[in-house]
Amino acid sequence: MRSRVFGPEIDRLIQQLARLPGFGPRSARRAALFLLKRGASVIQPLAAALSDAAEKIRPCGVCGNLDSVDPCSICTDPARDQTTICVVEDVADLWALERTGFGGSYHVLGGTLSALDGIRPTDLNLARLIDRAGRGNVSEIILALNATVDGQTTAHYIMDQLKNSVASVTQLAHGVPVGGELDYLDDGTLSAAMKARKAI
Amino acid sequence: MRSRVFGPEIDRLIQQLARLPGFGPRSARRAALFLLKRGASVIQPLAAALSDAAEKIRPCGVCGNLDSVDPCSICTDPARDQTTICVVEDVADLWALERTGFGGSYHVLGGTLSALDGIRPTDLNLARLIDRAGRGNVSEIILALNATVDGQTTAHYIMDQLKNSVASVTQLAHGVPVGGELDYLDDGTLSAAMKARKAI
Repeated sequence: MRSRVFGPEIDRLIQQLARLPGFGPRSARRAALFLLKRGASVIQPLAAALSDAAEKIRPCGVCGNLDSVDPCSICTDPARDQTTICVVEDVADLWALERTGFGGSYHVLGGTLSALDGIRPTDLNLARLIDRAGRGNVSEIILALNATVDGQTTAHYIMDQLKNSVASVTQLAHGVPVGGELDYLDDGTLSAAMKARKAI
Repeated sequence: MRSRVFGPEIDRLIQQLARLPGFGPRSARRAALFLLKRGASVIQPLAAALSDAAEKIRPCGVCGNLDSVDPCSICTDPARDQTTICVVEDVADLWALERTGFGGSYHVLGGTLSALDGIRPTDLNLARLIDRAGRGNVSEIILALNATVDGQTTAHYIMDQLKNSVASVTQLAHGVPVGGELDYLDDGTLSAAMKARKAI
């Protein structure tokens, strides 16, 4: 019945929009109608941005970041500290760290080790990290992985692989989030923050 | 700083996605990354569906519905009752009524009269409705407008305009929603349902 109501073009647009994360059938219908009512002047720039990104954006052969040049603009930026590599799970984590103003380089794993999901070291972008670390010009590797069981398992595995080739392997500090209230904090975070307390 | 992180193609894609209803900067970033990680095989069908819809979908010159043909497939369907016109505010309402299996034709106003927002009768698709009603082959006009102040004002205005040209002008019933609990219902709906009570 749906295709009779919408016609094939609108039906296909709704089905394609419904594949986006955070969109279901109802919100996809709403978005399709929003676009259709505004017409080509709003739809075509979105279509062009999509086509353009699909054509040009590729994973960086060095670090795994997404960019229109390979190696990516972070890997080739002479103003950045290329001797420090920050290891992240996903490009979204790279974007988040970029917003903090981190000035080193990155390495995107593309996931974490997971016994449950059957993700082994060879499924991740790990060989290239060990290769980068072994070239002798890396002074520090920062493991910025999620503080989950899988994230920490992955961090331990990478630490084991790198301990002989890199002078310093570090990880993000655990503690009270800025603006966080102790009362609402989980016990694990609070005891980690207590253990890692610092002199003022 | 953002364009330095993403590159212009990704930045443009995120900005375009952020214009969709229900999307903000964060969910647009998530959607962009979702698409970029899946590559051209997922992005291109969406881009093609958008271009195709922008090219082909137009408002119907008779009723205001969106379709790739003009007059739309509802207005020209001989299996539908073209003597009954259901007046709705928006194409979304037409889609909702189509899901109920309504078999007549429609007229999409494109909004409601609103003193606050300065929307006057000439801003709506009203002249064409009065024209359709005056041709003598319309037996019933159903006002399926929202049960809001603006919706009901518009319904009264249309009723005034049509009372001499159409045999029957009706509106949707007010009452208890199917599956609704009386305890949670607002007083207005409950008293409307009481007034409109029926013999079983």
